[in-house]
Amino acid sequence: MSFNLKSKADLYNELEQLNKIYQQKKSDSITLDLSRGKPGYDQVDLSNEMLDVLNSDSDFSTPEGFDCRNYGVLDGISSIKSLFADMLDVNPCNIFVGGNSSLNMMFDTVSHLVTHGISGCKPWFGQNVKFLCPVPGYDRHFSITEYFNIEMISVPMDDNGPDMDMVENLVENDELIKGIWCVPKYSNPSGITYSDEVVKRFANLKPKAKDFRIFWDNAYCLHDISDTPDTLLNIMTECEKTGNQDLPIIFCSTSKITFPGSGIAAMAASDNNINAFKNRYCYQTIGYDKLNQLRHIRFLKDIDTLKAHMKKHGRIIKPRFDVILDYFDREFKDINDITWTSPKGGYFIALKLPNGCAKRAVSLCSDAGLILTPAGATHPYGVDPDDSTLRIAPTFSSVDDISKASDLLCLCVKIAVLEKALDE
Amino acid sequence: MSFNLKSKADLYNELEQLNKIYQQKKSDSITLDLSRGKPGYDQVDLSNEMLDVLNSDSDFSTPEGFDCRNYGVLDGISSIKSLFADMLDVNPCNIFVGGNSSLNMMFDTVSHLVTHGISGCKPWFGQNVKFLCPVPGYDRHFSITEYFNIEMISVPMDDNGPDMDMVENLVENDELIKGIWCVPKYSNPSGITYSDEVVKRFANLKPKAKDFRIFWDNAYCLHDISDTPDTLLNIMTECEKTGNQDLPIIFCSTSKITFPGSGIAAMAASDNNINAFKNRYCYQTIGYDKLNQLRHIRFLKDIDTLKAHMKKHGRIIKPRFDVILDYFDREFKDINDITWTSPKGGYFIALKLPNGCAKRAVSLCSDAGLILTPAGATHPYGVDPDDSTLRIAPTFSSVDDISKASDLLCLCVKIAVLEKALDE
Repeated sequence: MSFNLKSKADLYNELEQLNKIYQQKKSDSITLDLSRGKPGYDQVDLSNEMLDVLNSDSDFSTPEGFDCRNYGVLDGISSIKSLFADMLDVNPCNIFVGGNSSLNMMFDTVSHLVTHGISGCKPWFGQNVKFLCPVPGYDRHFSITEYFNIEMISVPMDDNGPDMDMVENLVENDELIKGIWCVPKYSNPSGITYSDEVVKRFANLKPKAKDFRIFWDNAYCLHDISDTPDTLLNIMTECEKTGNQDLPIIFCSTSKITFPGSGIAAMAASDNNINAFKNRYCYQTIGYDKLNQLRHIRFLKDIDTLKAHMKKHGRIIKPRFDVILDYFDREFKDINDITWTSPKGGYFIALKLPNGCAKRAVSLCSDAGLILTPAGATHPYGVDPDDSTLRIAPTFSSVDDISKASDLLCLCVKIAVLEKALDE
Repeated sequence: MSFNLKSKADLYNELEQLNKIYQQKKSDSITLDLSRGKPGYDQVDLSNEMLDVLNSDSDFSTPEGFDCRNYGVLDGISSIKSLFADMLDVNPCNIFVGGNSSLNMMFDTVSHLVTHGISGCKPWFGQNVKFLCPVPGYDRHFSITEYFNIEMISVPMDDNGPDMDMVENLVENDELIKGIWCVPKYSNPSGITYSDEVVKRFANLKPKAKDFRIFWDNAYCLHDISDTPDTLLNIMTECEKTGNQDLPIIFCSTSKITFPGSGIAAMAASDNNINAFKNRYCYQTIGYDKLNQLRHIRFLKDIDTLKAHMKKHGRIIKPRFDVILDYFDREFKDINDITWTSPKGGYFIALKLPNGCAKRAVSLCSDAGLILTPAGATHPYGVDPDDSTLRIAPTFSSVDDISKASDLLCLCVKIAVLEKALDE
């Protein structure tokens, strides 16, 4: 019973029927939201006890005897550096712990290269610098490059990561290509993880620009929802093997481990890179919030305790993914042109519609009370040239709401696809 | 018994005697520090109870019902915006609440103007932009402008603030002068507060550059140690009267109210300026640490409770200032060329020596175990052309240590001054 195989008349009838159901649902005036990559409140509840570990009776000193209630320590207290080092599997001396936002650290990094440059190269300001943007990707990455007037070039993704033929060809031949945005594990929004081969090809890049950097946003490094999670090859280790250790700059945070907005961000990079960035940060601040660092290390303790904590997140998130994926399986199984990802972790599902259907589906949903991420947000400049990709964020709502939202979403998608089919 | 009135032989004898005492003190191998503008631990203890107000049983919602444990709210929760508005006597809608560091907000502000400009003017990058730097001033201000390659022009300060004839002349005639660094109350390091006339002259400036801004670092707005504290005219109100409301950008933080490094920073500015900066920050971050904002507002409550809290700080700090000032009064009373400030608040005392003596005094202190802020740090590029200003920071040490440190400081200063007198 694929749409593709039906006569125009059959499709018309089907559309009419679906529109009747849609009008009914629209009159229910519901308010649902699948747009936000935010943990649910049952998830943030998991970290409430972190707020008990520091109180007026606490010892505020690090093991080395540093009282965290005063100025000092630019790059983070050593225990939290060690935890991030374990999370990212790098040496603690290659960690810089920042404020509450890894996005802010990426912004600062790009900002530094725009005004000061790196590796002895001149600042990016005033040059026609370009970044590669694997698509679909994360809108806030693209916003940073847009803010700094950096031209963005879309690179298609498949199940293994970005199209590496295209990446190599561009990076190795164009000196103005200075960076690439990557979410290598449970990518936002497709949920795919870069294959070993893709990571190795990144490590083997021979960039034309000496100041080319891989912005490796490992936001979901420990955010599995499956018992057989994806594994990501260590980019730093691979780059050390090829002598390319200055290529990657790795970012992560505890935003989706403890509290979004009240977590801790960190970056990992080679000695050269870390020194260059420390040399900026020492002008920018005296240091970040060490009491929050102390709070985190006393709550998360070590990598094993942290992983156990992440299993609790996974158990909460999985049923939310499952509800949506079950709907997709059931409702779209006979429609060849609709595909979607089934991630083993992360915060998003990518739903791919026939070309020209995404905006219409979002608008139908919105009119009936379901907010989705705007179509196009997954592409540079907010424009998806195929108008086909939807980003679905299942974590923030209750299972019950997600069920209602999925029902409406599937209906709207079918209407949009039918309208398009009849239009051709 | 002024040095000035003695014969060379008398001065020699005196120097010899002082050197004997110095050698003795040097052999005591003490470790003292008057270099750091950090609160003492009895001060940070005052805020320990702030760590009790949020625990796992707390309600994490703002009065408007916003749960602070998740993403959102770029410019700060409204209750903390109101508190900062009361601190700075501005409208809450002109407040932007940031991360843990007002220095970082100043850095971000300059960074924004370097890459993006303001008021329709072109970015500062690549122009030979200049800043005025009242001296003596705060080294970390000067570092920001130095980092961005902005030329710094020293402007002398007197007891009323910067030399406004010079400021007006430069700002009103040179389009490349884009900013001035000010610590208008209990200035770092002199402790003086700008007079009403100085503030009014700032508000009446007619800058040649449309994108000239006054960087008004009101770090010590509530940091009195006297019962008859200085008062500072409200720059924003004055600028509104003259139609110059876009001139000032005001910064402050709770670093020296609650915990340095774990406090909250904020800026206040006109509608135009705040909108311009919000328009940057929305690319830079999703939002700052709202749990820390909630913690602060529940602990500090309102402006009256906050002021009562600041009185406790004042009572702790005042004896530390008094010890040093008593030493200066006693030891330097007969030496005409040594002057110092007696601030009614803030964190510093400026000690002015005869020209050419500051570095030597710092080095003598250092050799005997007393760390002072490096001579020159109070001037752009770390160079005090007169080599005469010392910044003394009395807050971090115990009264007992400050007493020992003052004793040694006075000795070293006298030796440096005598050596200089004999050298001439």
